[in-house]
Amino acid sequence: MQRRGRQIQPTDLKERAIGAVVSECRGRVGMSQEALAANCGFDRTYISRVERGILNPTVIRLWKISEVLEIPFRHMVSRMEEWLAERTKKR
Amino acid sequence: MQRRGRQIQPTDLKERAIGAVVSECRGRVGMSQEALAANCGFDRTYISRVERGILNPTVIRLWKISEVLEIPFRHMVSRMEEWLAERTKKR
Repeated sequence: MQRRGRQIQPTDLKERAIGAVVSECRGRVGMSQEALAANCGFDRTYISRVERGILNPTVIRLWKISEVLEIPFRHMVSRMEEWLAERTKKR
Repeated sequence: MQRRGRQIQPTDLKERAIGAVVSECRGRVGMSQEALAANCGFDRTYISRVERGILNPTVIRLWKISEVLEIPFRHMVSRMEEWLAERTKKR
């Protein structure tokens, strides 16, 4: 359960959340990084950089990834929030 | 009700969806564009450009906007998908 309040998470952890969820969703659909990039019209290495958490994609690009994977964008974002919450829980 | 399939929406309509939802959420919270930009640590004109649909923000920046407005990111994205679906319905 996520308690947010004014808590702001570091950018690098969010990039990792985005990467983890793109990788997870792509794996579930069974599409290669290269095929996903090609279907989105992105550079061949783009998905790899997003999944490694070293690239902060634009909203439009992540939205397009969700469309190509046929996973609602809100579901991807929900998983990103869960991923982050699991790693920043108060103890 | 949204039927997605392989239907890919044009980028400019998505930028407008992002802008409309940021504006709507900011209005609900009652924060000025300048205050939101300052609280996010963004340039003074950044929020204005996002809301006008002429700037495609990065995922991290939109996520930060949602944190400052204290609205879950997934709720903003859900509204963006609704906004887009309302404007691209089959007749």
